[in-house]
Amino acid sequence: MQKATSAPFCAAVDWGTTNFRLWLLGGNGETLAERTSAEGMRACLPDRFEQVLESHLAALGAPGDLPVIVAGMAGARGAWCEAPYLETPARLSGLHASAVRVGRTRRDVRILPGICQRRAGSEDVMRGEETQLSGAVAEGLQSALFCLPGTHSKWARVEGGILLSFLTCMTGELFSIVSQHSVLHGLLQEAQEETAMPPFREAVEEMLAGAPLTARLFNLRAAALLDPARARQSRARLSGLLIGAEIAAAIREFGKGPVVLVARGETAAAYETAIAVAGLEVATRDATDLTRGALHGAARSIWQEN
Amino acid sequence: MQKATSAPFCAAVDWGTTNFRLWLLGGNGETLAERTSAEGMRACLPDRFEQVLESHLAALGAPGDLPVIVAGMAGARGAWCEAPYLETPARLSGLHASAVRVGRTRRDVRILPGICQRRAGSEDVMRGEETQLSGAVAEGLQSALFCLPGTHSKWARVEGGILLSFLTCMTGELFSIVSQHSVLHGLLQEAQEETAMPPFREAVEEMLAGAPLTARLFNLRAAALLDPARARQSRARLSGLLIGAEIAAAIREFGKGPVVLVARGETAAAYETAIAVAGLEVATRDATDLTRGALHGAARSIWQEN
Repeated sequence: MQKATSAPFCAAVDWGTTNFRLWLLGGNGETLAERTSAEGMRACLPDRFEQVLESHLAALGAPGDLPVIVAGMAGARGAWCEAPYLETPARLSGLHASAVRVGRTRRDVRILPGICQRRAGSEDVMRGEETQLSGAVAEGLQSALFCLPGTHSKWARVEGGILLSFLTCMTGELFSIVSQHSVLHGLLQEAQEETAMPPFREAVEEMLAGAPLTARLFNLRAAALLDPARARQSRARLSGLLIGAEIAAAIREFGKGPVVLVARGETAAAYETAIAVAGLEVATRDATDLTRGALHGAARSIWQEN
Repeated sequence: MQKATSAPFCAAVDWGTTNFRLWLLGGNGETLAERTSAEGMRACLPDRFEQVLESHLAALGAPGDLPVIVAGMAGARGAWCEAPYLETPARLSGLHASAVRVGRTRRDVRILPGICQRRAGSEDVMRGEETQLSGAVAEGLQSALFCLPGTHSKWARVEGGILLSFLTCMTGELFSIVSQHSVLHGLLQEAQEETAMPPFREAVEEMLAGAPLTARLFNLRAAALLDPARARQSRARLSGLLIGAEIAAAIREFGKGPVVLVARGETAAAYETAIAVAGLEVATRDATDLTRGALHGAARSIWQEN
């Protein structure tokens, strides 16, 4: 049995599309050391995954035989080593049983699977969020509607520890590409000081009432041209339009009910406000805590059962 | 009085954001010569407008004193010479009366105004489409709901020759930035051979039934990951989703009724199909013909009344 000493039990990695995060964890899941970097999947393609992982482990002085558990995009097809999708309905406590061991590495590295939904017309995929959900289930949230905001925000219906269905909205990515590449670019650059709540809340309300997103996007530009005071609200309104569209989509798919929000920081604050505008109860869990907890749980299942 | 000879009566310019088009017109509006280029407003900023115009006139051997009538983005604030917006409701036959004469040019150059809508929450602007609408009015379409597709598609309600209200959707621009900058980029590059109609029509139907756009965008990626046959439909589906969202927005704003589509080529074909899927009658007018006709009408009003 592993004792809670300063000797790590495993390394746990949350390997996203654009970010990399690694923890050295003790036997009780306590964090002994931590690294974060921008070496997400995209930065590691086609073949820098092992090198990046080893560089961070070396920086922390990790033993050469320390096992590593990984969640996220490192397991995508064409990334480091494909961990094929499980399919909905999927038991979230069983992810570790489908972890894939990476070949030709000097240490034992396992990548947890993503989950896909093959329902015709609602095909969907996740890699990374299933690990957060399994962490929530392990903490006792066996049945809930979850919201996991991000570049590709997920809403997930979990019943009795089983992921029944989910829905992804391109919320964060649309915010990013509209900000950077559309006719709104200059406007949003200038507007970045103001993220005031009233324009954000109003935009959420409009989308919940069925306002058309692609028209509201151009309206940001027109309103700014006609009224400079409106220009300063553009970023807050864009955020509210996209998050409002997402919540409207989730209500359409899952109905109205309490939401467990898996987020942190400014993202958590914005979604808490928006979900409350929609009249739904919201309770927030820290996304990073859930990921780390789930990775530790999976690592225990893999390496302590043997 | 001007006779229909080969001596031009005026030059007419449609100066968009990304494209430039110039005609030498005879007294009856007949085209004597024509130039097109990619020297739209963006390519001419901050100060190449006169130089670009003169280069095209010189290439056609136009007289040094030939007057020029211009519609479009050359009249935007910060472009060549601002032609301030008229406001809705706006009489479309009266655009020429608000044309602005460009200062410090050796020839007489007039820029037609755009039109803005100051209605709170529905602020909107157009520059160029008002000229197409005035061309349609001049052809006898005094009352109609118009659809003018493009980077920023417009729907416009005209009654008795007066533009009452309009709605802009960022349809073309979203297609462009999602294709070029989102996670769908690679998929859409590979899929570009197929623009088959069934996937396009289905996507339009989904949006008319209220499907959530930002979720359907991610669904394109998920469906392609899970089923390579679906990948080839991605461009047709993306186009159908965005055009369907636009038509749904227009129906929400203007109700269901016959539509006059101002377009040409592939764009006209796609919108004709999509508008028919929505159960609306559609009659198509050539966008370029309307612009040229309206520019000629405005030129006659300006230079033949004196």
